[in-house]
Amino acid sequence: MLINSLPGYKSAMLVGTCDAKGLTNLAIVSSHFHLGSSPPLLAMILRPSTGNSERHTLHNLLETQCWTLNGFSLEHAAHAHQTSAPYPKDRSEFNACNFEAEWLDQFGAPFIKGAPLQVGCRLREHHPLEINGTHMIIGEVQHLRYPETAQRGDGSLCLSDLGLVAVSGLDTYTQPDAGVRFAAADTNSPPRQL
Amino acid sequence: MLINSLPGYKSAMLVGTCDAKGLTNLAIVSSHFHLGSSPPLLAMILRPSTGNSERHTLHNLLETQCWTLNGFSLEHAAHAHQTSAPYPKDRSEFNACNFEAEWLDQFGAPFIKGAPLQVGCRLREHHPLEINGTHMIIGEVQHLRYPETAQRGDGSLCLSDLGLVAVSGLDTYTQPDAGVRFAAADTNSPPRQL
Repeated sequence: MLINSLPGYKSAMLVGTCDAKGLTNLAIVSSHFHLGSSPPLLAMILRPSTGNSERHTLHNLLETQCWTLNGFSLEHAAHAHQTSAPYPKDRSEFNACNFEAEWLDQFGAPFIKGAPLQVGCRLREHHPLEINGTHMIIGEVQHLRYPETAQRGDGSLCLSDLGLVAVSGLDTYTQPDAGVRFAAADTNSPPRQL
Repeated sequence: MLINSLPGYKSAMLVGTCDAKGLTNLAIVSSHFHLGSSPPLLAMILRPSTGNSERHTLHNLLETQCWTLNGFSLEHAAHAHQTSAPYPKDRSEFNACNFEAEWLDQFGAPFIKGAPLQVGCRLREHHPLEINGTHMIIGEVQHLRYPETAQRGDGSLCLSDLGLVAVSGLDTYTQPDAGVRFAAADTNSPPRQL
């Protein structure tokens, strides 16, 4: 539990997948990271053995080559956390945990209906990591939906407008406020708050 | 800017390094992730060309095989953000941005004195990622310091007690509250708040 706290706050996103037969799966994952913007690449770490949900996610996304990332707010944190229970493969967490699947634009994995941020990723690379048996999954963003009002002039999203949560360790969910924003730093002037 | 917002809230930690001559460097990095607990592995993504700070970090940690991660609170966010300015290699961000270096237990990289969370990592693996030229750096936790009062009975850290910030995109810092905590989920009972 200690080591999981050390990276600090993490992103919590619900990962939606389905297998080749269309059986859906939903799993909370907190190991997302931005790999690059051009092309738009997001990555995550999936574990081999801790929790059935993640193994289903890995199996499904290798089978269908795609998955969705769905943001959620604090009012849905209890249900989001519940997706970490070891449901059998034939029991979809969409049903078990009160989320409604939504299929958009023929994308091959299910989104969560009403999620404030919906990202569809296509598998680009799968790196099994020998050091500890985990899997790094790299996806390219193919589909993206969020409320227009949350996007700023520079293209970035105001995550507090979306109401997204951050997660601490494995069990603590918090919905941060807007915080403070700084201009791009340069060496000739002091930090400037926007 | 949009793509950088998609992973949601990220951990912001200041990475301390030095080169073989002992010249120190400090850089804010927001791409940390937990790779595994046994052995205790933390990883981060460093970019090849965006910002001199990160290239100095990469150069230094490949040279010395070690680095530090230092948490910070909102009151230090402006100075932390300032480390992203492109200072030349001979100008240490410790000095330029008002942080004091601290050397602990002969560990080969500098910590930030007074940081609420201090983690010393030894290089285990360096994976250049062909897909976009970024570098995945995997470290094993070798040194760890935090206030005892922030540790819970199960070993996890209360990040809000430490006052750590989360970062959104490249420029927004927020210090979340304690949030809500849930018991480990199982399939036979509803979510239970702790």
